[in-house]
Amino acid sequence: MPVQMELVRLILSETSDEQYVILKEKEGTRAFPIVIGSVEAFSIRRRLLGETTPRPMTHDLVINIFRELGVEPVDVVITELREHTYYAQLRVKRDGELVEIDSRPSDAIAVAVRCDPPLPIYVNEGVLEEATGG
Amino acid sequence: MPVQMELVRLILSETSDEQYVILKEKEGTRAFPIVIGSVEAFSIRRRLLGETTPRPMTHDLVINIFRELGVEPVDVVITELREHTYYAQLRVKRDGELVEIDSRPSDAIAVAVRCDPPLPIYVNEGVLEEATGG
Repeated sequence: MPVQMELVRLILSETSDEQYVILKEKEGTRAFPIVIGSVEAFSIRRRLLGETTPRPMTHDLVINIFRELGVEPVDVVITELREHTYYAQLRVKRDGELVEIDSRPSDAIAVAVRCDPPLPIYVNEGVLEEATGG
Repeated sequence: MPVQMELVRLILSETSDEQYVILKEKEGTRAFPIVIGSVEAFSIRRRLLGETTPRPMTHDLVINIFRELGVEPVDVVITELREHTYYAQLRVKRDGELVEIDSRPSDAIAVAVRCDPPLPIYVNEGVLEEATGG
């Protein structure tokens, strides 16, 4: 069963390429960090701060693609943890049908925060247990 | 009339965030540079060198989206030059209908080189004239 999470913190370091998002259970206390790259971290940050750019940046392009194609973004699911690496899916609806698109968690979250309202983020229970040492 | 171009060079600098792609007319001699960011430049480079990554990077995500949605990428058109900034469209076919998606040229080219065969790149004649001082 997927558990709904909240993006509670974004921890940025100017001196490292390893940035962090902290996801916490919406209806609980378990939380865990995911290491993400600087590009995706700053893309998430730009959106959280409401900063705009004259032209669409890469994650805005994904939003444009969905809009122009009439595709409705649904949610993000962090599906797997394999060798310290998280795997995710960005799930969208096309003509009422659910379509799962493989994505890094960082890209999926950067897209999620650009939606209005932001897409919910889920983690598979097994992944949450492993990530939180449960 | 759009003019078909070729990506003839990618000029990377480690000491600057300004990278360049050089586009040259396929059936002619006019050429011009577009300044692009490092992230997009290295994304184009990775693909040109055939480097792969275990998880989809951001432009690979765009390709995954098109594949999962059954959308066929068609071409890239550089449509405008306004205040020294180029604007582009990534054009795709959905159910036989052409859909134009606003994009930075750099993102559109990073997607174009990931297609097999790579998507053709066009520049509107007026933009080409202005870019080449013609």
